[in-house]
Amino acid sequence: MLLKNIMISGESSDMLIEGRHISRIVQVKDGGIPACGADVVDCTGKTALPGFINMHTHAGMALMRGVGEDISFHDWLERIWEIEKNLDEEYVYNAVRVACLEMIKTGTTTFNDQYWYMPMAYKAASEMGIRPALSYVICDRNVPAEAERQKAECMEMYEYAKNWGETGVFLISIHAIYSVSEPMILWAVDFARSHGLPIHIHLSETSKEVDDCRSAHGGMSPVEYLDSLGILGPDVIAAHSLWLSDRDVEILGSRGVTCVHNINSNLKLASGYMFRYNELRDAGVNVCLGTDGCASSNNLDMLETMKTAAMVQKAWRNDPSAMPLEELISMATVNAAQALGINAGKLEEKALADILIVNTDNYNFLSPGSFEANLIYSAHSDCIESVICDGRFVMKNREVESEKEIIASARKVLMRIM
Amino acid sequence: MLLKNIMISGESSDMLIEGRHISRIVQVKDGGIPACGADVVDCTGKTALPGFINMHTHAGMALMRGVGEDISFHDWLERIWEIEKNLDEEYVYNAVRVACLEMIKTGTTTFNDQYWYMPMAYKAASEMGIRPALSYVICDRNVPAEAERQKAECMEMYEYAKNWGETGVFLISIHAIYSVSEPMILWAVDFARSHGLPIHIHLSETSKEVDDCRSAHGGMSPVEYLDSLGILGPDVIAAHSLWLSDRDVEILGSRGVTCVHNINSNLKLASGYMFRYNELRDAGVNVCLGTDGCASSNNLDMLETMKTAAMVQKAWRNDPSAMPLEELISMATVNAAQALGINAGKLEEKALADILIVNTDNYNFLSPGSFEANLIYSAHSDCIESVICDGRFVMKNREVESEKEIIASARKVLMRIM
Repeated sequence: MLLKNIMISGESSDMLIEGRHISRIVQVKDGGIPACGADVVDCTGKTALPGFINMHTHAGMALMRGVGEDISFHDWLERIWEIEKNLDEEYVYNAVRVACLEMIKTGTTTFNDQYWYMPMAYKAASEMGIRPALSYVICDRNVPAEAERQKAECMEMYEYAKNWGETGVFLISIHAIYSVSEPMILWAVDFARSHGLPIHIHLSETSKEVDDCRSAHGGMSPVEYLDSLGILGPDVIAAHSLWLSDRDVEILGSRGVTCVHNINSNLKLASGYMFRYNELRDAGVNVCLGTDGCASSNNLDMLETMKTAAMVQKAWRNDPSAMPLEELISMATVNAAQALGINAGKLEEKALADILIVNTDNYNFLSPGSFEANLIYSAHSDCIESVICDGRFVMKNREVESEKEIIASARKVLMRIM
Repeated sequence: MLLKNIMISGESSDMLIEGRHISRIVQVKDGGIPACGADVVDCTGKTALPGFINMHTHAGMALMRGVGEDISFHDWLERIWEIEKNLDEEYVYNAVRVACLEMIKTGTTTFNDQYWYMPMAYKAASEMGIRPALSYVICDRNVPAEAERQKAECMEMYEYAKNWGETGVFLISIHAIYSVSEPMILWAVDFARSHGLPIHIHLSETSKEVDDCRSAHGGMSPVEYLDSLGILGPDVIAAHSLWLSDRDVEILGSRGVTCVHNINSNLKLASGYMFRYNELRDAGVNVCLGTDGCASSNNLDMLETMKTAAMVQKAWRNDPSAMPLEELISMATVNAAQALGINAGKLEEKALADILIVNTDNYNFLSPGSFEANLIYSAHSDCIESVICDGRFVMKNREVESEKEIIASARKVLMRIM
């Protein structure tokens, strides 16, 4: 496929995409790439962006929006658990299809997920045509029999995911230090490292998690505790990382950890908001963005997440220059690709062909501000006209194939479950 | 016009709208209203809401999005002033048309504005079909000749606006205590009260404003200072009201003032974020919401404002139950109508026919959460399918008449000005 006359970083360009199993960008030039048989898509007046990468979500919660509003974290969690008792494969398949539909409509082409019934999520995402990063979730809650069952299942899932290639990324999730026993944390990390898999964990999300850890582990913070076990490294993706001491920041930086900021979830559940972006970035941490699941945040919109993250950062730091636009875009694209070990998040030769086509012919872009400023601060995701993932249009002119069927099917499942 | 089978507060209803000069809701019933010659609009499966009321904006800044990103408040203000030197009637007319286009697309049917060339704003809003609340802006900057000029112009504008009836609301704006001399503040308030006009003022937006006031006025806060002049009352609409002492809250409550929270602008310019919502509400203040102008916030989207206001309130108060959904809706509708002295912001007999028709047949509403939860926390304004203002469709199926012409015309003006 050849995208003709598309704006990339302010320059009108041509972009050639090729590939059979996996599609890549093979050439980007300021015009003049010959079609040579490729399908030509005229993009005059449109702007290209790499697809967004949502680095922490629970896609299976896409049918749990608004189940607990304006209530305490504890009451909210009880409601979620009550609902989760009834979940099954059919529910997760339908929920992940709805999540993928929303992600496509809001410009996300890769999502880093943590939920149950992982093969159902792979099936749904593959059918929808976006790139999932899925994990087997270790969460033994200190029950030895459960730990043994999970070890076996984890190995099974590893075999299942072995042949994904670049159609997906397989990770090991360790739910959190409060829900996974120490031997199981060590087993999971050993398993992940011996197979070269990244590790996804909830870390220091609430002040309670930090206080409880300090009580249980001789005054150590969750970061210090994990570091004492030799677990922190460049293969670790730490979701939330909200309640951090100076020492924590230093450790995370020196180990090259990736931290994922989930501002909407943190605000809405009142977990906190003083994410230490400047300090983490300056310490060498790879910082990314995530939406968290729809039960807490309540959508999967990365543009909204970028805007809120930057605005709240500016406000609490009392510094309107905090978290500038260029860094926001990197957090939502190239930083995330690096953490997942995929060549994506940029519009360059050899990168995976995950591309957004943005329509700037509307009031949001009608100003002398930069494309990035107008995109993030003024526009909403409906300016994303088309989405290409793996070289294939998964949305064209705001239309996603089978949208009506996905919603009708999910509605049926909801009636059965809730 | 008869809206058939539309959901109102969870009940399928019929709603009849009538009126020649001004249209009102004349009947709302759970079905069975006969058409009797009225145009019938089938709204099966849709939900109705009163149009949103944006209680503090500067519509004329709609072409200044992103002019100063990631820079200090001072540098930002200098940039705005530099641009404003070149403004003229044609610019303001075009900018307000763009603002109205955006407001219609995001569900706002009334906006409380403060900007220059007010007759141009009235012309633009009337042509677009939404209800403006416009003010003559007093801002003498302590220059006596300017004060005299403004007095004369203010009286002229009062005469100009005299026959608006309910097609618009005329107010007197006092820019702020730091930009208007004390004699001119007193003159403006006297003028407003002798003609029964509401008063719109920027109040306690930054901590600097409060500090400067305390230095200049014997330790009094801006609220105490205005109260000492006898100015605070139920006819005062105080934008921002962010930096308030306990005593300030008490005064504002006892005087029945309306306060307008502008969360996005406050966050983005790093003015502050600890808006004292609970205290103000409990003291009897009428609290509303605004977007501020596009130069600071950078859009006019009231749904986004509702979400951000609630989330930030929950976070800094460390209370996920803060600013609940029902109160958010009131702040954006009925509270605002009360402050402007119009019978709007509700779907009841005799109310002005300003109505949103929301499409809930999409992933955002696919959950057991309430309509309000899904609307504010999950959806974006593109779920607003049609907008009726003053009994007339100003948007139908997301289409606004002359959208292309408005944008093309504004683009030409921008090229001339910037």
